[in-house]
Amino acid sequence: MKYPAKVKIVDVGPRDGLQNEKAPVPAAIKIELVHRLQDAGLTEIEVTSFVSPKWVPQMADAAEVMAGITRKPGVRYSVLTPNMKGFEAAVLSKPDEIVVFAAASEAFSQRNINCSIEESIERFRPVAKAARANNIYVRGAISCAVGCPYEGEIAPERVAMVARLLKEIGVQHIGVADTIGVGTPVKVERAMEAALQHYGVDDISGHFHDTYGQALGNTLASLQMGIWQYDTSSAGLGGCPYAKGATGNVATEDVVYMLQGMGIETGIDLDKLIDAGKFISDYLERKPNSRASTALLNKRAG
Amino acid sequence: MKYPAKVKIVDVGPRDGLQNEKAPVPAAIKIELVHRLQDAGLTEIEVTSFVSPKWVPQMADAAEVMAGITRKPGVRYSVLTPNMKGFEAAVLSKPDEIVVFAAASEAFSQRNINCSIEESIERFRPVAKAARANNIYVRGAISCAVGCPYEGEIAPERVAMVARLLKEIGVQHIGVADTIGVGTPVKVERAMEAALQHYGVDDISGHFHDTYGQALGNTLASLQMGIWQYDTSSAGLGGCPYAKGATGNVATEDVVYMLQGMGIETGIDLDKLIDAGKFISDYLERKPNSRASTALLNKRAG
Repeated sequence: MKYPAKVKIVDVGPRDGLQNEKAPVPAAIKIELVHRLQDAGLTEIEVTSFVSPKWVPQMADAAEVMAGITRKPGVRYSVLTPNMKGFEAAVLSKPDEIVVFAAASEAFSQRNINCSIEESIERFRPVAKAARANNIYVRGAISCAVGCPYEGEIAPERVAMVARLLKEIGVQHIGVADTIGVGTPVKVERAMEAALQHYGVDDISGHFHDTYGQALGNTLASLQMGIWQYDTSSAGLGGCPYAKGATGNVATEDVVYMLQGMGIETGIDLDKLIDAGKFISDYLERKPNSRASTALLNKRAG
Repeated sequence: MKYPAKVKIVDVGPRDGLQNEKAPVPAAIKIELVHRLQDAGLTEIEVTSFVSPKWVPQMADAAEVMAGITRKPGVRYSVLTPNMKGFEAAVLSKPDEIVVFAAASEAFSQRNINCSIEESIERFRPVAKAARANNIYVRGAISCAVGCPYEGEIAPERVAMVARLLKEIGVQHIGVADTIGVGTPVKVERAMEAALQHYGVDDISGHFHDTYGQALGNTLASLQMGIWQYDTSSAGLGGCPYAKGATGNVATEDVVYMLQGMGIETGIDLDKLIDAGKFISDYLERKPNSRASTALLNKRAG
């Protein structure tokens, strides 16, 4: 079996993870988490979201967090921008990358943002244009790419359609996201094949949730297709606030443990990564939601 | 990617799982678990171990449990027999299959059974012979096939050696067991290749632990090699009492969820399986150690 020699991990814990905590986490803690992740060797971190604080109070400190980070050369800092207002606020923080998002499920799109998939993507056109004019890289996340809490299974054709529309508005990279974690290897392969109709293998990420314990199998299946970029969340922080029972971004620690075991280069120091996950878990007064972290912390305890 | 059309799951929860509970579980509960597993569609169940009650009080009721099961046609009931004394007791219970075991780690063998790998297998020669004379199928488990708590990584050559020795004494089927859960796909592929030097693809099982969250990835990698038989444990019961931090047989529920999602036939009713895992977990006053079970039970709760 052929695997990529290198994998790039994007840690989405500070944004995707902490956005789902009921009580907002102080900016200083978020900044410390970002610093710990970059010290552990992460080269891309999804830091925050420039979104209305009325809707997402957890991200109200977006500008403060971005300003507080001591940037490390070679690390990319990305932020979510749901609209032009968000983008205009974001651009002042000088992100390397912005993230826009669309669902591959019509029902999910309608219920959560009250418009069709096509309309939702069309709304991002000025955002993507403005970002590229500012030399900011544009990533698009395709949520519910395998399954949807309302529609059930999602046809790969939907993923292809969303990929095509994102391509049309100038999105440079797409993430295929199994938002509710129902994906299994064959289904994920099909979603990836659909994405590959419109984007090259170097411009696609996998974003898997471990809700049903399937994320590492899905990562392995994607690796075998040459996909070498993955979104993961330190300590398994996060989930999706709109999808019932959809806790469970895959833990960065579990993915890195697998990749290192496979001899795939990540540039990440697993011990430091575990410390970073332990730091934020301690703050949140819970244990890291990562089996590799749990096993290695037990081992350390001796 | 080519996958087997059918997979056979051997649920080892009643033995491998419950052997690791500090307080022995009553025979009636074990029998009920076996009944629930066979009702869920399991076609092989590792029921108990005929071992000295002084060493393993959890299995002191082996004969009682075997006698209490209402056998279902088409289901195989296997038991562990560590020596001739165990075999002689086991044979009265009419198991379909006995299981003998050897480690692929010399240090593990020395520390836990105080003899070399070769000696440990030689001791099973009369057991295997007697079993085959009684028309009982003989399975061999190769523990620490990927890693060992004392030696660290295990060379595939060790697995090949143990497989060869087991073959020589008449063992008909071998299980490649990652007892401490440190395996990752490439290492597991190499262990399987080593096993395949001496056994056909139809005579090899995978037995993975989820200690580091790697079991489903390892299962997927093995499926791709044509391996279609797996030991799993309902509700993720169990572990290895001798290996520190080695809790975590992979949950049957998580494996079945993956297989069903991939369109691979298992003959198992996932809902009934979840009920069986919930039954034993309720008795043990804990939650099932299975992400798929947790997610589906949350969904049921509505």
